[in-house]
Amino acid sequence: MGKGELTRQAILEHAVGLASQLGLDGLTISRLADDLDLSKSGLFAHFRSKEALQVQALTLAAERFTAIVVRPALAAPRGEPRVRALFDRWLEWPKSFPQPGGCVFVAASAELDDKPGPARDLLVRLQSEWLDVIAGAVRRASAQGHFRKSVDPVQFAFDTYGIMLVGHFAWRLLRDPKAWERARRAFSNLLAAARVSPS
Amino acid sequence: MGKGELTRQAILEHAVGLASQLGLDGLTISRLADDLDLSKSGLFAHFRSKEALQVQALTLAAERFTAIVVRPALAAPRGEPRVRALFDRWLEWPKSFPQPGGCVFVAASAELDDKPGPARDLLVRLQSEWLDVIAGAVRRASAQGHFRKSVDPVQFAFDTYGIMLVGHFAWRLLRDPKAWERARRAFSNLLAAARVSPS
Repeated sequence: MGKGELTRQAILEHAVGLASQLGLDGLTISRLADDLDLSKSGLFAHFRSKEALQVQALTLAAERFTAIVVRPALAAPRGEPRVRALFDRWLEWPKSFPQPGGCVFVAASAELDDKPGPARDLLVRLQSEWLDVIAGAVRRASAQGHFRKSVDPVQFAFDTYGIMLVGHFAWRLLRDPKAWERARRAFSNLLAAARVSPS
Repeated sequence: MGKGELTRQAILEHAVGLASQLGLDGLTISRLADDLDLSKSGLFAHFRSKEALQVQALTLAAERFTAIVVRPALAAPRGEPRVRALFDRWLEWPKSFPQPGGCVFVAASAELDDKPGPARDLLVRLQSEWLDVIAGAVRRASAQGHFRKSVDPVQFAFDTYGIMLVGHFAWRLLRDPKAWERARRAFSNLLAAARVSPS
């Protein structure tokens, strides 16, 4: 990786952090230039438009998400351990990658739902892929005999994402100190209901 | 209710609809004036600041929420019927009150988590009250013998809100035609797990 690419990634990491706090709409080239003490014209030459900057910031965040959450979780043994690992690694995500405003994908989901364009299209693709990763792990957990055959993998992924969203909401908006404890309990109940022999 | 008050409410209803789409930050006095073909100075004299407008819009939305969701649900018989009614009425909420961008409270929650101020304080209070209403109904469902005594009402409210959030996400961002069907199934599983004699 050359010096230019490292610089680009460092700029985009900062951009993701900003987007987590201000929203993607608040992520402007001039704000980024001010924050990093870089020239606006230099950044503009690099990213060309606010929209391109948003898309590249989301792309970088997705690469990091794969490295921090998905890849290590998929290294866990097939079946329930892998399903648990996906949830556990997700909890690490805003800690392992600097996002002062919480998860950039959660923030962007609420923001972009009404804003057609390339950033929204990319986000929909990323979020759908993430739900598919969870559903795939659940499907394998049924094949392994850990979960009942009747467990609907897509419903399980939907339910898991709901737990993530409410954990995030309770943490970020309500500043509830029990937010993640409650999220873990909800997920644990979801697992128990899916298991072949409930513990 | 005088003509002035009716006008104020009609303006605020439009403001809530705008906030559901553009976020509270996009809800400016000039945008509102343009939309409603009213004079900016007149609106400014009325609301005085963007912040006051945001707070009044959230307050009006909360009054409507009480009328459309909470009050009819609390009229349902104590116990499980009331818990179900709270969920069912919530599903009606964005249909009964014009919010082209979905639920204004869900949108505002993601937006305001990083923005200290009176609008955030009000939203935290409203969201906490809503969770308390659900928890209270669950507590009564245990007292009535419908739910097990060991059901944690605060956890149940947390889980319910997660289902609402993911239903909203799947509907608004993913445009998933099964969003509400999945949300209903998740809530139905939650009820089943809480019941004294699972059906």
